[in-house]
Amino acid sequence: MNRFARGERVSSWVFKICGLSEPELGILLSSIDLKHGTKLSISSRFPDMTLRLTVDEDDSGKTADLRAQIRAILGSHVYAESDRMLEEVVGELLLARQLTLALAESCTGGYISHRITRVAGSSAYYYGGAVTYSNEAKTLFLGVKTETLERHGAVSRETALEMSDGIRERTGASIGLSVTGVAGPSGGSAEKPVGTVWISIAQDSGHEARRFHFGGEREQIILSTSQAALDWLRLSLLQQNAAV
Amino acid sequence: MNRFARGERVSSWVFKICGLSEPELGILLSSIDLKHGTKLSISSRFPDMTLRLTVDEDDSGKTADLRAQIRAILGSHVYAESDRMLEEVVGELLLARQLTLALAESCTGGYISHRITRVAGSSAYYYGGAVTYSNEAKTLFLGVKTETLERHGAVSRETALEMSDGIRERTGASIGLSVTGVAGPSGGSAEKPVGTVWISIAQDSGHEARRFHFGGEREQIILSTSQAALDWLRLSLLQQNAAV
Repeated sequence: MNRFARGERVSSWVFKICGLSEPELGILLSSIDLKHGTKLSISSRFPDMTLRLTVDEDDSGKTADLRAQIRAILGSHVYAESDRMLEEVVGELLLARQLTLALAESCTGGYISHRITRVAGSSAYYYGGAVTYSNEAKTLFLGVKTETLERHGAVSRETALEMSDGIRERTGASIGLSVTGVAGPSGGSAEKPVGTVWISIAQDSGHEARRFHFGGEREQIILSTSQAALDWLRLSLLQQNAAV
Repeated sequence: MNRFARGERVSSWVFKICGLSEPELGILLSSIDLKHGTKLSISSRFPDMTLRLTVDEDDSGKTADLRAQIRAILGSHVYAESDRMLEEVVGELLLARQLTLALAESCTGGYISHRITRVAGSSAYYYGGAVTYSNEAKTLFLGVKTETLERHGAVSRETALEMSDGIRERTGASIGLSVTGVAGPSGGSAEKPVGTVWISIAQDSGHEARRFHFGGEREQIILSTSQAALDWLRLSLLQQNAAV
């Protein structure tokens, strides 16, 4: 997407990035041969990251090749080539596939739901969800078995799967997304330290749960979890064909 | 709360403010007679507002009287005299009263739940809640009657009351708080324009719903709604005695 910035002699292109840390992104980009008159800069507003390619207007012929290189290197880590939010992209993918979403959040406490719903028009694909901050809520709203919570704990593959299955079955949404983790500062253990998070996606084709570990303080863990969950959902949707 | 800022010759006191716009706050404060060496400044990070009283160290004797004036003029609009968030103050009030909270959010989409849970230790008083973004979700999770939704609409006193009652009864929490409104940009009507919000609190002593109207864009309406809901909850808790 061609965007003209301050003045008329410079053009810039934006790539929104997901699933990489800033150092990882820097390493990946280091192989790019930046010719005179071109510049790559990274800016981040945690957990969101923006890569900007700036090119002198006179050299604009160079950008097609450079942009192709960036796309080839970063692949699906690029979630947009314009200044959009991850939750907007996810919403567009859901709309195009005519799918609906329901959420079951524990450690993120409603933050993913907030991100989904701050996008205007999200009621077209978002059913709603449950913030199951207590074990009782997990059982009441999602039907998570007391036995599962006792045997495996609230932060476990088994609980995450029952949460995503539960919200999907109860609401009838196409996709059930769940998160359960230890946001801290307390509640961690040797086996499940602060920052341990299970995310699960349930859909027609089956269900899956993945374990993550995020660093930082409570707020950062919540933000990182929301980003990882939305990014996994995006990648999962990309593998499905849009409705005709 | 005495706080020393940059350098040693100045002291400053912080008052966190709720339920007033910046112009309203300015008018209320205009009656205060600020003597030489004292200064009042307002800073805001929407929807939060901070009033700061700065006094030359040599004149610190003046502050007790000034602070008393500020308290008398602003009354319960001051929710903290330190740099705290409204959701922290609400959490402390719930803890002191040994009460639990459950939320039923529509237009705020989980944002109030996020604010409650970004406070460390909130699991001690927060049960969880439902984000009932669709009418079906209001019925499924909260037991709101289809008849109520059809007759009065999702944004109505009746629906707000059934939402707060429903979340309270189903979870067994001491307090059920609900919000339902039109965050826009679409969905408004002549009778219920964008920005119309109903908030309801249900507790042992009964239930109540209030209508609000907030200006601004979608994001601002969500933020303002969360602030109004938490502030009403705070004032309601202040009227109840702390547990002995």
